[in-house]
Amino acid sequence: MNSVQARRYAVAVIGATGMVGEAVLSLLAERDFPAGKIHALASARSFGEDVDYGGRSLPVGDLAAFDFAGVDLAIFAVPPAVAAEGIPRAVAAGSVAIDLSGQFADEADVPLVVPEANPEALADCGRRGVVASPGIVSALIPVLKPLHAAAGIVRLRLGLCQPVSAAGRGAVEKLARQTAALLSAQPVELAPDEIQAAFNVVPATLAEAAGDGPPPASRLAQDIRRVLGDAQIAIDASVMRVPVFFGYSCQVWVETREPIEPVTVSKLLGQAPGVALLSSSIRPTAVGHASGRDEVFVGTIRRDQAQACGLYLWVVADNLRKGSALNGVQIAEILIKDYI
Amino acid sequence: MNSVQARRYAVAVIGATGMVGEAVLSLLAERDFPAGKIHALASARSFGEDVDYGGRSLPVGDLAAFDFAGVDLAIFAVPPAVAAEGIPRAVAAGSVAIDLSGQFADEADVPLVVPEANPEALADCGRRGVVASPGIVSALIPVLKPLHAAAGIVRLRLGLCQPVSAAGRGAVEKLARQTAALLSAQPVELAPDEIQAAFNVVPATLAEAAGDGPPPASRLAQDIRRVLGDAQIAIDASVMRVPVFFGYSCQVWVETREPIEPVTVSKLLGQAPGVALLSSSIRPTAVGHASGRDEVFVGTIRRDQAQACGLYLWVVADNLRKGSALNGVQIAEILIKDYI
Ligand SMILES: NC(=O)c1ccc[n+]([C@@H]2O[C@H](COP(=O)([O-])OP(=O)(O)OC[C@H]3O[C@@H](n4cnc5c(N)ncnc54)[C@H](OP(=O)(O)O)[C@@H]3O)[C@@H](O)[C@H]2O)c1
Ligand SMILES: NC(=O)c1ccc[n+]([C@@H]2O[C@H](COP(=O)([O-])OP(=O)(O)OC[C@H]3O[C@@H](n4cnc5c(N)ncnc54)[C@H](OP(=O)(O)O)[C@@H]3O)[C@@H](O)[C@H]2O)c1
Repeated sequence: MNSVQARRYAVAVIGATGMVGEAVLSLLAERDFPAGKIHALASARSFGEDVDYGGRSLPVGDLAAFDFAGVDLAIFAVPPAVAAEGIPRAVAAGSVAIDLSGQFADEADVPLVVPEANPEALADCGRRGVVASPGIVSALIPVLKPLHAAAGIVRLRLGLCQPVSAAGRGAVEKLARQTAALLSAQPVELAPDEIQAAFNVVPATLAEAAGDGPPPASRLAQDIRRVLGDAQIAIDASVMRVPVFFGYSCQVWVETREPIEPVTVSKLLGQAPGVALLSSSIRPTAVGHASGRDEVFVGTIRRDQAQACGLYLWVVADNLRKGSALNGVQIAEILIKDYI
Repeated sequence: MNSVQARRYAVAVIGATGMVGEAVLSLLAERDFPAGKIHALASARSFGEDVDYGGRSLPVGDLAAFDFAGVDLAIFAVPPAVAAEGIPRAVAAGSVAIDLSGQFADEADVPLVVPEANPEALADCGRRGVVASPGIVSALIPVLKPLHAAAGIVRLRLGLCQPVSAAGRGAVEKLARQTAALLSAQPVELAPDEIQAAFNVVPATLAEAAGDGPPPASRLAQDIRRVLGDAQIAIDASVMRVPVFFGYSCQVWVETREPIEPVTVSKLLGQAPGVALLSSSIRPTAVGHASGRDEVFVGTIRRDQAQACGLYLWVVADNLRKGSALNGVQIAEILIKDYI
């Protein structure tokens, strides 16, 4: 880094006390992002707390009382409803906002970006002053993009295992609490209609789409089509919550226009940015590989036994890195290099 | 039951100290199977132990030293290698053997039976004196059979979440041990190449096919084709081990020859033997529904968003009931009614 001349950027991280916000702060520090002043913001509940930024302690400010004037970049890692209110305020004050919540992901004039696939879409960041970063889709795109370019993806089926941390810190604590209760033969406390998370697999419903929980299947499909720039790809996604703390695991069935051999796919993915291809004797898992790592791990590439021109891949990635915070920080890095 | 005239059958349950054997014994008792003498057998390790049979305590005998003479039905719930040695001895002594291990499942002259689909195949039980009962496939067939009959299944993709109990009692104890260690921040003890089971999702490899572990994907496909009596069905299965104690969860993508509406499928499955169809607002799970229950639960029936003539279903079932022991006991019930 050329520290003599380099410009420094005032950054706000909103949701700094949350799982994604915490990861954003540590990635900014790890990657030597040229931040000048960093504002860590959350709700009034967190007022008076501190968060860590590369070994330094930052006081947490209250979003509601915060004035965005002078902030170059505002990274929103808060529930969608909070982003819906906060982002327009940040943009009105002249900040460029990066939305990690999904709130702005389907607005046509807001670019939805995964740097491995469509960094050029960031040229539109000025239209609304907002860039949207998809969640789990960020972690799948580094694998899907080279395949799409080489052979043309026509159909995709996803079986996605979401860790509890995909629903935030509260869900992490809940899994730990439920598990501890069950291991000591205590009853698990559940709200009406709540399904036990511990030692269970819970299919997502479309109803969950409305809340702040895991993204609904239809959102996944829409985001993949948009980032790959191909509205024709047929996509079905089945989403399950598994009793895992960190890391997505995903079964991926891909059908391509052109036939492509698993060995060719291995070659492609071996060179793909952001992808770590493991030898076929290694089975990547959320715990063993994804957790705390930037790369998207691919461990099985084989023919789909049910379909000519079909492939099956097993993909794992950290939901808090490439699946949210890292993609946001990569977007920030391109924004300051090329656009702000 | 007409107790005056009813014949009683001498039954041996081999693997009586295991998870499946224990379930076989409790189902025989629950369902008033007309058993006369019941022999509970296991390895020499278990000699001197007792097992429960409907509230009565049975002493465990040593399979190696056991003489099958006089035994009508021998139900084998042991590792495949043990079935390979024990079943020929039982048959030589005049017993009809039911193999729950998978060892005999691909022998062409051994019927592979799921009573909801192909009970007539039991007519061949005399050829070798052995009937094979598939594992998880028993739990999927009650759902697939009516669909196949109504619309012709041409293609099937399965994403199967296996509980640890699918690999026996040892794996159950291991998950409990690993989970307890992690919750108290202790290190998890793993053998070389062993992957942490707790709080993790582990994809199965073909290599696991060789061992006594979960069935390999290719075996699933083969068994489904055979039980449905249709060698043309294209099948791909992805198998994962999840940190769940009991109960399979399965994502099922089905493509049919004739178009069929989800509402028609609901009607069909609402009347299908062995199937419990839940309203679409209820999400069946291993813990909430499958565990300890005989039925196969279906909770989501929707169109496959990636395919015309495609459906998606979410299915859960107890691996120790319909997924193994119950199917074996149902086979036994037909055998004594019609064939022995
Ligand atoms: N976790 C993931 O894997 C993942 C992946 C992709 C996208 N996302 C999205 O990222 C966002 C954050 O998720 P998370 O997992 O980090 O959740 P989290 O751990 O629950 O954290 C939520 C954060 O939002 C803040 N917040 C909540 N209400 C607020 C309000 N009214 N005003 C200001 N701040 C408020 C919280 O502050 P307090 O501590 O003060 O309550 C906290 O910092 C969500 O939109 C989520 O859907 C998450
Ligand atoms: N668990 C499932 O969900 C499931 C589903 C479908 C099929 N299956 C199949 O069912 C069989 C039993 O599985 P499980 O889950 O019940 O396993 P398990 O809990 O490990 O029990 C294994 C049983 O086999 C006995 N055994 C092992 N070696 C023996 C030997 N040399 N001689 C006599 N008995 C021996 C054990 O006796 P000791 O106690 O004396 O060692 C025990 O009773 C396996 O083939 C499995 O693949 C299991």
